[in-house]
Amino acid sequence: MIQKLIDKIEQTEAPIVVGLDPTLAIIPQSLQKKYYNQTGETLESVGEAILSFNRAIVDAVCDLIPAVKPQIAMYEAFGIPGLIAYRQTVEYCRDKGLVVIGDAKRGDIGSTSAAYADAHIGRTVIGERSYQAFNEDFVTVNPYLGSDGVRPFIEVCQKEDRGIFVLVKTSNPSSGEFQDQLVGDEKRPLYELVAEKVAAWGAESMDGDYSNVGAVVGATYPEMAAEIRKLIPQAYILVPGYGAQGASGKDLKAFFNADGKGAIVNSSRGIIAAYQNEKYAKFGEANYAQASRQAVLDMIDDIRGAIG
Amino acid sequence: MIQKLIDKIEQTEAPIVVGLDPTLAIIPQSLQKKYYNQTGETLESVGEAILSFNRAIVDAVCDLIPAVKPQIAMYEAFGIPGLIAYRQTVEYCRDKGLVVIGDAKRGDIGSTSAAYADAHIGRTVIGERSYQAFNEDFVTVNPYLGSDGVRPFIEVCQKEDRGIFVLVKTSNPSSGEFQDQLVGDEKRPLYELVAEKVAAWGAESMDGDYSNVGAVVGATYPEMAAEIRKLIPQAYILVPGYGAQGASGKDLKAFFNADGKGAIVNSSRGIIAAYQNEKYAKFGEANYAQASRQAVLDMIDDIRGAIG
Repeated sequence: MIQKLIDKIEQTEAPIVVGLDPTLAIIPQSLQKKYYNQTGETLESVGEAILSFNRAIVDAVCDLIPAVKPQIAMYEAFGIPGLIAYRQTVEYCRDKGLVVIGDAKRGDIGSTSAAYADAHIGRTVIGERSYQAFNEDFVTVNPYLGSDGVRPFIEVCQKEDRGIFVLVKTSNPSSGEFQDQLVGDEKRPLYELVAEKVAAWGAESMDGDYSNVGAVVGATYPEMAAEIRKLIPQAYILVPGYGAQGASGKDLKAFFNADGKGAIVNSSRGIIAAYQNEKYAKFGEANYAQASRQAVLDMIDDIRGAIG
Repeated sequence: MIQKLIDKIEQTEAPIVVGLDPTLAIIPQSLQKKYYNQTGETLESVGEAILSFNRAIVDAVCDLIPAVKPQIAMYEAFGIPGLIAYRQTVEYCRDKGLVVIGDAKRGDIGSTSAAYADAHIGRTVIGERSYQAFNEDFVTVNPYLGSDGVRPFIEVCQKEDRGIFVLVKTSNPSSGEFQDQLVGDEKRPLYELVAEKVAAWGAESMDGDYSNVGAVVGATYPEMAAEIRKLIPQAYILVPGYGAQGASGKDLKAFFNADGKGAIVNSSRGIIAAYQNEKYAKFGEANYAQASRQAVLDMIDDIRGAIG
């Protein structure tokens, strides 16, 4: 699966992913009202509004980008109707030829991780039939439970040609509380130990020069990324934290390998809420999707400039 | 919320929780076939079978126990119909007066954790209305992202009188890979650092003598539990790993405080799949719920004997 993502990145010349993380603060009021007028201020109305919003954004940017990353929490907050919108968003994006990275940060003990892996990147077998419950191409995985919590995902990667990104060093301010703790006689940060495990797990699921097992490293920590990059030469790094979380193109060079590959940079609010940004205000709320397209074009310029 | 759980434990004299983690290997064949005959080998059929199975178990044991712990992964594997069964299971258990611990192990960066917290233990606001998307009393939380990933859950605990259990030392064989790493100048295991954070976070949401912020510590690591117990005197410990994962009553004393409080022990397969255990085979598949009741009675005896 990683090769498919690499091919899409080369085709678009854009190592970027658009985070589809809709909230009621982002979806235009007029679009929300359209559905509230039909079915009231209900979870179902919001589910419809989310799907409509996502489709418009995807239609406007799908020729420019290789992948999208819906954050499932933003859908789970709206219960079953929200998760229906998530499932439909995944399917819509796949139909448009985009690689879909489900940002679910799942992880549990063995048999339970296997259930999550089946749900998100695999198949659930019922008698003689099987179903792809959520059907993402990649899913993000939390490593806190160790190898036997991660390996069920890798087994499904192998069986179904899918991929995972394991949290190594997250983009948030307090990520260092546990992830930066110095461990062992070498006093290395914990995230480096996790990165080494990513390299080992990744060797079990290679696809061309890169592995189906990638890592999440926040754009907000470029110095640490440079060290992590050396530890996992065959892993793609999914990089959150660009844009709204504060990092810019110049911070990103450390995340890429010398071959110009090895990283894909996410922006969520910076793209899908572009119409609310002064820089793109001229588009107006009604043209929110076109504002998103311009924000994607600007992000591609910024990143090509930084890594070129 | 922790006080409600403590009251229920004192009322039942049973510091135990039944894990509602149905799989197709556990739900009796005859029950599955009933729904397959109606609607085929579909996700919807399984959703109905899960709900029917859970209801029968809950009806058979609800007078004996204070709480249940549905593992959401086992429902997520069956997609939207599975999650509908999860939501209905939560509601059914609440109606029976049981405390519901949603085992979701969620955790993300701040605003995303807030969405998960709203989804599971809080409310999602839509215009002038609000909805409880999954409506559990407690949810389990993964701490790998640090304080700003956990604190949104605590804020919701305060606002809605709910609770969380934070993963400290999990029951699985490889939990030590990261959790046991020795950190800092004192060379303490990472899980102790997490436990100290649990104590600090917990002080922000007290409810009587105990905190709404509890910890998950596996029954499979009783020596470590003894140390953790000292670090978090005001936290309840949710203890997985009893029964099918190998621990027994004698391993459990270390998890409790001197007042006989402070822990609640989970058994999942040991209870809900009791009818498949040679010990309870006399009940037969048709009386699976009665086998579960006997298994609960035996577990209560085992644990009362160990901590009494």
